[in-house]
Amino acid sequence: MSEITLHPDRLFPTDPSIRSVARSLYQEVADLPIVSPHGHVDPALLVDDEPFPDPANLLVVPDHYVTRLLHAHGVSFDRLGVPPGSANGADPRAIWRTFCEHWWAFRGTPSRYWLEAELVEVFGIRTPPSAENADILYDQLAARLASDDCRPRALFERFGIEVLATTDDPCDDLSPHRALAEDADFKGRVIPTFRPDAYLNPMRADWADRIAKLGEVSGQDTSSYAGYIAALEQRRAYFKANGGTATDHGADDAGSESLSEADATRIFAATLAGTAAGEEQVAFRRHMLSEMARMACDDGLVMQLHPCVLRDHHTSTFETFGRDVGGDLPVAAEYTRALRPLLNRYGTHPNFRIVLFTTDEDVFGREIAPLAGFYPSVFVGAPWWFTDTPDAIIRFREAVTDTAGFHKTAGFVDDTRAYCSIPARHDMARRLDCSYLARLVTEHRLPEDEALDTARDLAYRLPAETFRVA
Amino acid sequence: MSEITLHPDRLFPTDPSIRSVARSLYQEVADLPIVSPHGHVDPALLVDDEPFPDPANLLVVPDHYVTRLLHAHGVSFDRLGVPPGSANGADPRAIWRTFCEHWWAFRGTPSRYWLEAELVEVFGIRTPPSAENADILYDQLAARLASDDCRPRALFERFGIEVLATTDDPCDDLSPHRALAEDADFKGRVIPTFRPDAYLNPMRADWADRIAKLGEVSGQDTSSYAGYIAALEQRRAYFKANGGTATDHGADDAGSESLSEADATRIFAATLAGTAAGEEQVAFRRHMLSEMARMACDDGLVMQLHPCVLRDHHTSTFETFGRDVGGDLPVAAEYTRALRPLLNRYGTHPNFRIVLFTTDEDVFGREIAPLAGFYPSVFVGAPWWFTDTPDAIIRFREAVTDTAGFHKTAGFVDDTRAYCSIPARHDMARRLDCSYLARLVTEHRLPEDEALDTARDLAYRLPAETFRVA
Amino acid sequence: MSEITLHPDRLFPTDPSIRSVARSLYQEVADLPIVSPHGHVDPALLVDDEPFPDPANLLVVPDHYVTRLLHAHGVSFDRLGVPPGSANGADPRAIWRTFCEHWWAFRGTPSRYWLEAELVEVFGIRTPPSAENADILYDQLAARLASDDCRPRALFERFGIEVLATTDDPCDDLSPHRALAEDADFKGRVIPTFRPDAYLNPMRADWADRIAKLGEVSGQDTSSYAGYIAALEQRRAYFKANGGTATDHGADDAGSESLSEADATRIFAATLAGTAAGEEQVAFRRHMLSEMARMACDDGLVMQLHPCVLRDHHTSTFETFGRDVGGDLPVAAEYTRALRPLLNRYGTHPNFRIVLFTTDEDVFGREIAPLAGFYPSVFVGAPWWFTDTPDAIIRFREAVTDTAGFHKTAGFVDDTRAYCSIPARHDMARRLDCSYLARLVTEHRLPEDEALDTARDLAYRLPAETFRVA
Repeated sequence: MSEITLHPDRLFPTDPSIRSVARSLYQEVADLPIVSPHGHVDPALLVDDEPFPDPANLLVVPDHYVTRLLHAHGVSFDRLGVPPGSANGADPRAIWRTFCEHWWAFRGTPSRYWLEAELVEVFGIRTPPSAENADILYDQLAARLASDDCRPRALFERFGIEVLATTDDPCDDLSPHRALAEDADFKGRVIPTFRPDAYLNPMRADWADRIAKLGEVSGQDTSSYAGYIAALEQRRAYFKANGGTATDHGADDAGSESLSEADATRIFAATLAGTAAGEEQVAFRRHMLSEMARMACDDGLVMQLHPCVLRDHHTSTFETFGRDVGGDLPVAAEYTRALRPLLNRYGTHPNFRIVLFTTDEDVFGREIAPLAGFYPSVFVGAPWWFTDTPDAIIRFREAVTDTAGFHKTAGFVDDTRAYCSIPARHDMARRLDCSYLARLVTEHRLPEDEALDTARDLAYRLPAETFRVA
Repeated sequence: MSEITLHPDRLFPTDPSIRSVARSLYQEVADLPIVSPHGHVDPALLVDDEPFPDPANLLVVPDHYVTRLLHAHGVSFDRLGVPPGSANGADPRAIWRTFCEHWWAFRGTPSRYWLEAELVEVFGIRTPPSAENADILYDQLAARLASDDCRPRALFERFGIEVLATTDDPCDDLSPHRALAEDADFKGRVIPTFRPDAYLNPMRADWADRIAKLGEVSGQDTSSYAGYIAALEQRRAYFKANGGTATDHGADDAGSESLSEADATRIFAATLAGTAAGEEQVAFRRHMLSEMARMACDDGLVMQLHPCVLRDHHTSTFETFGRDVGGDLPVAAEYTRALRPLLNRYGTHPNFRIVLFTTDEDVFGREIAPLAGFYPSVFVGAPWWFTDTPDAIIRFREAVTDTAGFHKTAGFVDDTRAYCSIPARHDMARRLDCSYLARLVTEHRLPEDEALDTARDLAYRLPAETFRVA
Repeated sequence: MSEITLHPDRLFPTDPSIRSVARSLYQEVADLPIVSPHGHVDPALLVDDEPFPDPANLLVVPDHYVTRLLHAHGVSFDRLGVPPGSANGADPRAIWRTFCEHWWAFRGTPSRYWLEAELVEVFGIRTPPSAENADILYDQLAARLASDDCRPRALFERFGIEVLATTDDPCDDLSPHRALAEDADFKGRVIPTFRPDAYLNPMRADWADRIAKLGEVSGQDTSSYAGYIAALEQRRAYFKANGGTATDHGADDAGSESLSEADATRIFAATLAGTAAGEEQVAFRRHMLSEMARMACDDGLVMQLHPCVLRDHHTSTFETFGRDVGGDLPVAAEYTRALRPLLNRYGTHPNFRIVLFTTDEDVFGREIAPLAGFYPSVFVGAPWWFTDTPDAIIRFREAVTDTAGFHKTAGFVDDTRAYCSIPARHDMARRLDCSYLARLVTEHRLPEDEALDTARDLAYRLPAETFRVA
């Protein structure tokens, strides 16, 4: 196999005219700072600033994009150290070897694209992984990881990250965020995101425990619905006081019908008492989505919504290996009807903002762009998770620009647990946005000066402004 | 910003080989007459032939593609003179200024494409709108509008319109159409389209009033179901006698299950009496879609169907500003099952024809093309409304040609309220159809002589023949 | 019209760089043997090895892709000899003439592409069909059909077919397959596929008769559920003993919820007694899909699933002309939820394999690729039926590669009744896969050596291995 070459024109369209414009647009945005308003990096990583443990536990184990495809090729999670941190006895070197033996399986996938970029740009390694060189690569990477310039903080600086948002439990005390903010040696900005799903869905088995915990942490009496609402408001304020600018919401669907105060109070009590019916609990969850919107009008936290993923599809995998191991699968999404109650109440509120994400590409053009092209509060979220890929990002622009233009899209989010892939992911999005813009230029649909202005907006200004981190 | 340049190769693919073929195909169809079988221009405009009032009320206020995106960027409809004709006190010059200040918001949208074409080709203006030049542009446009060659009839001729279909209420007396037909000074053909939605949906609050009105206008006793049917048949005949060749139908869904005569009679009476249940009324609406098909077999009016749009999504906007201000939003569409009852009855009737439109692109390839590729009566409607855009028109051809070929597609419809955008819209469609055909040529899938023949069919022959205006 | 030219670069992208890479990849796979693991050729054709009867009954009558589009242009099936073998009195020469008169209707369709390839490559004819030359062409083709090198076995060899799978009724005695296997003069491999739909769906009118027949053929007592299950297992074993490697399943939906043994037994008996409720029968059909998966874990036959097509949409066409005449129409598909019960039971079984096909392109990226990117047993089926077309095959790769890579796709299947189109169909898929890979190469997303390796896998290794015919 040939060496990994990160060609300077990679991802640009092949046509020489389009490529030429894409390249010149890209040169102007390639080095803009990274604003990462949605991701899953553990902030403790930056507090501790310890060297990464080993190649497998850096690049394979925590990245469910990688482990799920290995699993699909018959590698059991046992052999991959999944779930991360489980210390299930799998030897890192053996994990790495298994990964290298399956390098062919990643051809054409964004995982391969990111991994190649990480190997070359972060670690200076140009050898494509294979069964033959797995051990050599492991040793080379391990040596690099031991050096100070590969520690998390050094990389943060090298990556050019201006803002990094994490995703956090409402009961989290955010001490890592505070520690980083107070640390004069750390210049970066790491902000929390309020992710209350587990507290808004009374069907979860651990709901009562969580509500009790919420009461403790907030100092509110969460045995009543009113106290529960007050506790959530208190925690949102706490997140905001600690730098948070946004909340994040996943759910089985985007339903948002409000309940009356009386009904909400009744279902809340019935759930704690163990007597609530399933459909009531669904109604309560939907009601709480609207409640989050109501609170957002007050506190200005930007709502992020990404519904319609069926979690933990394979029950025995979930029972053995837990959540977030690749068993979450998209289902057909519906936003127009589901969000109507919420948007009828808050859609034109001057303080309200909601960013809609999806894993069902169909709704980009059919529903999300039309919603964002009408409601001042609605923004189109970047293609994300299964659709954070070269071809899908182009399809995204092709699907939404007609109806929503560029300036109702929220900018790229990397949504990653793989810290070292952050620059490659943002770079990929910038290259593709420039490619799309370049085609508009060469098809005489947009002058190059406006394309350049737009490329800058997409790369930096829009994520910063949309997520209120500017 | 650079001057607006309407590049002669605009919208053609960048690849030089494809572009070269596209250009030569386009040259053969660019000047063919415009057949506009579906639109929303007010025919009184051509009867009165008055100068257009001012730039804002010509280009901004009546175009909900434009006002909805301004609204999405936080401009309230109050400041935009919405709804058109409301005389809500907004100063036209101020409206125009607001529009110019937001010119950047339209980058990449078809609205921008059409507006640029109108500015240059209709009014000879090449300055891109901006906050700085808004007043100058306003004055320039106002001066142009005052000249005789910018009056509606002069433009009709300049635009090369051969047939213009309007959309009309069944109770309309069609006097503008008659006046134009009888006017020896006006050479154009302006024909009505029978749009009975409001009379077929008993759930509408104003239904009883409309049915009474229908009785008056038709001279039938519409207090009974039989009289109601007779009245609709009479009005269809009246439209046909006044040049109409088609009917137009929107609805929440494409359901078409027939009721028995007895059930239809009963639900009709119950609705007038205010005692009908909601689901009965839905069943009645679906039954009436099939009734329209039955009548179409008799009178040969071409049925146009575009279901599955949720109207007036934001209730307070509807209450304040009325219908058709940008709050209609697509939902997932379904045709195969919904139209089965109708097509089982009339789908192979030699006189029947139905053109299926959609705002849900998914159904083009999955349902509409397969239906049109089997039933002699079914034709594929052009991409329309949210999908009447450069990229979506190409996707449309890519989605339907495989299964339905070119000759079961109905030709372009502009569907516009923006009179001055008509030539730009048809020109856009011709450029894109030629672009698609050119790719087939350069990929050696279609010889150039057949591509040219097809381009002519798409631009002129198919809309004329499909809508029976040839 | 110009002569039919099968340009050597046909279907390759126009851009010279991409085309150049596509061409060199294609050259390496063009002549690989054909593995056809899913199709509808009658094996008796090869046993008898008689000359084909006439051009119409070879190229028009049995190909419902062709006859449905003629029907859509107003040609009644009566005039087309439909259904095949009906000897409905239509003169083959008249059928052929009707077809030639409508040659324009096939512009841009894959049927035209295949027919051109057949005319040129199989029969050496380069004249495009037209009203004028229909009779001449008929005579030329008839003369060619009479020659020995156009008999089925000679073509089998000329086509380079290594394996041809047929689709067969579970009660079929597979004597043609045995005859071919035992015939020392025939070197090809023709294997049966177990297609039990009619036996798994108790709602079918002929179900009881079929179950009785199944009992006779299998020697099991199919008056009881246990005997019915045993009979199906026996027939699967019989197919496997006669070379079968796969089963094939269509259904209204992909539902797979298992019933208890008691419920299954009860519904089975109630259906035979004529007392089962409709929803019970649906539940039974879904249960039987899971039963097929259970048996597949035991016997290793590869499951093929292609649900969500509404069969026989136009009832009077079905009543007059029967099944499979073009009236089967896609509906929106759902796999993630529907297959969850089946995959929860068998999805990680080491012996289990299921290939998911669809006519709803939306689910490729949204559901099938994510399922195949997680479950070791799930493979992505090739675009098929309505989507076995140049543009759709490219869209397929663009939709699934990101999530599932190349090596969880199953390779091309031709799914055809049109024997002479087999090489053209496989050739088309190879050209398009090479085109997609070539773009990855020129966009610097995959080195050319790996692209070539992948092209070979897609053309030959993956279909052979996935369907266990290697």
